[in-house]
Amino acid sequence: MKLPEMKALYVGVLAVSMSTGALAGTVTSDGPDVVIATTGGFKAKTADGNFAFKLGGRMMWDYDYVSGVYTRNNTDAQKDAHGHNLRRARLELSGKAYKHWEYIFTVNVPGGGRDSTAASAFNDLGISYTGWDGHKLFVGKGKEPFGLEEQTSSKSITSIERSMMWDATDSDSQTAWGVRYDGWADMFTWSLGLFDQGYVDAGSGSADYAMTGRFTVAPIAEAGNVLHFGAAYRMVPEGNAADSDLFDLSPGVSELANHGTADNKFEEDLAAATSAVESDSQYGLEALWIGGPFSLQAEYFHRDIEYDRQKTAVADEEVTGWYLYGSWVLTGESRGYKAGKKGAVADIVKPKGKDGAWEIFARYDTIEADQAGAVTDPEVDAITLGANWYVNKNVKLAMNWTTVEIDGFTQNYTAGQDDDGDALLFRAQYGF
Amino acid sequence: MKLPEMKALYVGVLAVSMSTGALAGTVTSDGPDVVIATTGGFKAKTADGNFAFKLGGRMMWDYDYVSGVYTRNNTDAQKDAHGHNLRRARLELSGKAYKHWEYIFTVNVPGGGRDSTAASAFNDLGISYTGWDGHKLFVGKGKEPFGLEEQTSSKSITSIERSMMWDATDSDSQTAWGVRYDGWADMFTWSLGLFDQGYVDAGSGSADYAMTGRFTVAPIAEAGNVLHFGAAYRMVPEGNAADSDLFDLSPGVSELANHGTADNKFEEDLAAATSAVESDSQYGLEALWIGGPFSLQAEYFHRDIEYDRQKTAVADEEVTGWYLYGSWVLTGESRGYKAGKKGAVADIVKPKGKDGAWEIFARYDTIEADQAGAVTDPEVDAITLGANWYVNKNVKLAMNWTTVEIDGFTQNYTAGQDDDGDALLFRAQYGF
Amino acid sequence: MKLPEMKALYVGVLAVSMSTGALAGTVTSDGPDVVIATTGGFKAKTADGNFAFKLGGRMMWDYDYVSGVYTRNNTDAQKDAHGHNLRRARLELSGKAYKHWEYIFTVNVPGGGRDSTAASAFNDLGISYTGWDGHKLFVGKGKEPFGLEEQTSSKSITSIERSMMWDATDSDSQTAWGVRYDGWADMFTWSLGLFDQGYVDAGSGSADYAMTGRFTVAPIAEAGNVLHFGAAYRMVPEGNAADSDLFDLSPGVSELANHGTADNKFEEDLAAATSAVESDSQYGLEALWIGGPFSLQAEYFHRDIEYDRQKTAVADEEVTGWYLYGSWVLTGESRGYKAGKKGAVADIVKPKGKDGAWEIFARYDTIEADQAGAVTDPEVDAITLGANWYVNKNVKLAMNWTTVEIDGFTQNYTAGQDDDGDALLFRAQYGF
Repeated sequence: MKLPEMKALYVGVLAVSMSTGALAGTVTSDGPDVVIATTGGFKAKTADGNFAFKLGGRMMWDYDYVSGVYTRNNTDAQKDAHGHNLRRARLELSGKAYKHWEYIFTVNVPGGGRDSTAASAFNDLGISYTGWDGHKLFVGKGKEPFGLEEQTSSKSITSIERSMMWDATDSDSQTAWGVRYDGWADMFTWSLGLFDQGYVDAGSGSADYAMTGRFTVAPIAEAGNVLHFGAAYRMVPEGNAADSDLFDLSPGVSELANHGTADNKFEEDLAAATSAVESDSQYGLEALWIGGPFSLQAEYFHRDIEYDRQKTAVADEEVTGWYLYGSWVLTGESRGYKAGKKGAVADIVKPKGKDGAWEIFARYDTIEADQAGAVTDPEVDAITLGANWYVNKNVKLAMNWTTVEIDGFTQNYTAGQDDDGDALLFRAQYGF
Repeated sequence: MKLPEMKALYVGVLAVSMSTGALAGTVTSDGPDVVIATTGGFKAKTADGNFAFKLGGRMMWDYDYVSGVYTRNNTDAQKDAHGHNLRRARLELSGKAYKHWEYIFTVNVPGGGRDSTAASAFNDLGISYTGWDGHKLFVGKGKEPFGLEEQTSSKSITSIERSMMWDATDSDSQTAWGVRYDGWADMFTWSLGLFDQGYVDAGSGSADYAMTGRFTVAPIAEAGNVLHFGAAYRMVPEGNAADSDLFDLSPGVSELANHGTADNKFEEDLAAATSAVESDSQYGLEALWIGGPFSLQAEYFHRDIEYDRQKTAVADEEVTGWYLYGSWVLTGESRGYKAGKKGAVADIVKPKGKDGAWEIFARYDTIEADQAGAVTDPEVDAITLGANWYVNKNVKLAMNWTTVEIDGFTQNYTAGQDDDGDALLFRAQYGF
Repeated sequence: MKLPEMKALYVGVLAVSMSTGALAGTVTSDGPDVVIATTGGFKAKTADGNFAFKLGGRMMWDYDYVSGVYTRNNTDAQKDAHGHNLRRARLELSGKAYKHWEYIFTVNVPGGGRDSTAASAFNDLGISYTGWDGHKLFVGKGKEPFGLEEQTSSKSITSIERSMMWDATDSDSQTAWGVRYDGWADMFTWSLGLFDQGYVDAGSGSADYAMTGRFTVAPIAEAGNVLHFGAAYRMVPEGNAADSDLFDLSPGVSELANHGTADNKFEEDLAAATSAVESDSQYGLEALWIGGPFSLQAEYFHRDIEYDRQKTAVADEEVTGWYLYGSWVLTGESRGYKAGKKGAVADIVKPKGKDGAWEIFARYDTIEADQAGAVTDPEVDAITLGANWYVNKNVKLAMNWTTVEIDGFTQNYTAGQDDDGDALLFRAQYGF
């Protein structure tokens, strides 16, 4: 027999030998050839690349111990608290038809009971067209193109929670409705979009949109050897109103809030006069270096809000934040990086050995707000140390310890209360 | 080698040649032979026809510009409005077991945020038995058998929104709990069901049910050549109460309402004295002609509500509506038709060329209410022009322009306001 | 050709002969060999046992006629009520990755409309590790290990509704967040877990946990021949508060409550002073015998709540319940039993003939509460007769008739009202 025949027989023999005693049933396609896989979830695609289907999901289950400013009351009577938290649980469908038409359909499902009783809702939902090489058009609900850590999947970030600055942006990882264009070529990527700000202008009855764009360059983008820089800008067109929770200086810990009726997060919201905003803009700078098992990642963020002096006495506001962290994968693997069309974002550590990969990291994270004429400018500084065990490609177990110090807070804070706190977070994460 | 052997080897060779460098893994069944397919979603069935599984979904994303009576306030201060709208997003499972037992399990998921925050809920959910040839029994949540456009899938209707009359029926496309029997033979179909009206009788504490039936005949039912007539009747048994929102003369535009706290729909509800209803009945007539790329579709609807003169002074009410539209598929394809057991409904245009199919249509649509003794009888007339691009079997892009004129409105309307309005609707639709 | 070659060709020939006229497309895996199946839902697993994916669901659609104490008002004006009820509808995903890491992800979806408008929420959601032989660790939302009927799937219980005692436990079939360890060896199983009680301690701001454990022994555990005994214990650590709805003596009928605004269930809640609970513990005893087509099942339950005399005058409370039922599968099949690692629970009757399996059963079910010093101790006795038609492995049709008598009720009851009632329940169940 010639070689092709041999292979054919080999395939057949495998099929037969797999059946437990009886002859295995065949599986065929009634259309083009199909290739399938299960890696916890399920995938099917046609061999010609025209059609694809993928069903998976993620779940992140946390247990948190917190003290000081992290507690709900921050009083002597309540020095600490602890509890579980279903941080994320998401069903994820995606696929494509006729080669260039892709869809994404991911649903957040709440835990019910004491955990969030919010209604299920889409996280990402939309349609992409990829028919022009190097370009992608998306319409639907998705992320605004701003920031490296924000663009990176919650499954792939190094720390349990993203840095504090993201709560202060108006482009945070909560997805928004809009249209988005992505392009890529060589070492560059660029993205631009219009995104619903989440409310209707009272006067016009119409939705208002923010313009958001991001540009990245990755002069080095090989496995285990990455150098990436990026910048992003976001503005709300003149006359539109800013988001009402302008600066949420939440200390970045997972939301124990879900465990009670009150919000556990210790926040400071700056004065907001939403209907009098004259301009609201923000920019971000990002850098990532991966060298074998080591990596450094940093981002800087600045936001400016100016008010119409004829409509309000509220002073103009600025928020500035940055973070820097370094990570070391003790078992020698590297953090991943998805270049070009994949979004110019970081990817999860994929363990090579059968005992998984171990990573440690340290992060410094700070954010401050500055309001013209204010006596005190609220500021938060945080240091996080963490260890990750990437058990396999699906399972990640993580432990983070964060110590935080606040200064100049006037809301949710009275003199004599703790101005610092600690959080010890555990996470079990499963991506399927 | 003999032919069967040759084919076997051919299948094997295909399998091998598909793998990228390495030998492809085999896929077998541990039971009967299975046939699978992915066309964006995923299907699997046993070759013997006994078992089947299908997972898909739909999403419809609209952008709307409206003016005049379509705006929330219909005031000089607000002459127009615009915004996006997640019109439908649905996860759809269905399947069968042991040949004659089918299930359907489709879930509407809301967009969250400013889009509907309603809880996820089933659209269709139920069990069918198909063991008697030409007959089907269904128990669960599904559509009442009333009307051609209503029975037709929202993916397959010609216009972005159905005609105005459906909001005035009490059998609209919102699914209802009940039992339904469908039969078919030759050119005929007939359906009959009992459907929960959506409330509990205050006196008895029991659910009340409407009886709904539909009969169709399709003397011609070939691909591209269809002639279809139908009639339907619905009544609520004596003593039961009518739906409380009797006549919602919404102008048929997609719901900008979702974008704000108030309802953007310009409605006129006739007086309703639900507990004093003596009889509530409606009938509908339907006609469809498809001749190659051309089609004509029309329906007529009439509803009568009579009140118990001893319980209320509210006058008896009548609502009458009809529509007529013609469509032309410029690229030569025909609108589809699902005859007999498929439900005697229209089907989507399936593009044949690689550039998709283009269709244009024009519709006249009118509805009026008549209350005994009322000075003015509210009436709405609308003309819609639209163009559809069926990009492929999964993707449809549509643009509709509707101009509407109202008369005799007394609610949500004050003298001097606009009595007309325009709506320009865009839709991106993906069925997977 | 040698035998392996012959088999290979046979597989190929099957694949080809299945295609309708044209050559069928191939289906291969791009990783390890995959085995798939559809039995209404869909399953895929790798032949090496390392990865698996399963998607299915369940729906239970009831129609209920009730009278007397089962009605909402229990007045002469309302002697009976009837209505449909979507009792359960659940989407069920589960799978594993890297052999020892399993996930479960099941979502309850409400019916919408008059049926429950509760938000979708997880029923079971979590991660298991099975790497140690005979042991399983679970973290997430799942059942507490207490009771035979409670551990048995709602698809597999004999009656339409479980026995009354489960509403009086604080470990009922509603899943709870926690960690659970299961072990098994020979004829024994043991389970132990910590489970969130569903509220936050007002003082500490932390979640409180109950400890629950179960032990079973099955000296006989063959198909159609089973003898099983079990015991379980649950306690809430001192200082923690008890669930606020302590004793819900609901008569066990499906929830017509969903059909109205008021709760249709005729309940008696004993006095509860949740913050003054000194100890809250419960234990259960279970026995099951299966002998061919016959089976007997019984459980006993006792719960004690003691209050802190310094904080409250509420007297200590006890609840005691038990049930016994016998079933006979007329067509000769046996009830199933899942031994050892499968959970030591009962399983559904699997029909062997093509006309399905028929089963009849009779149950006596009683529960009473005893409060120190109370004049009357509420008690409920119920007799249920039922018939099940297991049409096939997916579909079960059931009819239950229950007659109930209450005594000593003081809440939701006034002298002169009926103290008994009947319920006739129908269920159509589909597991896919």
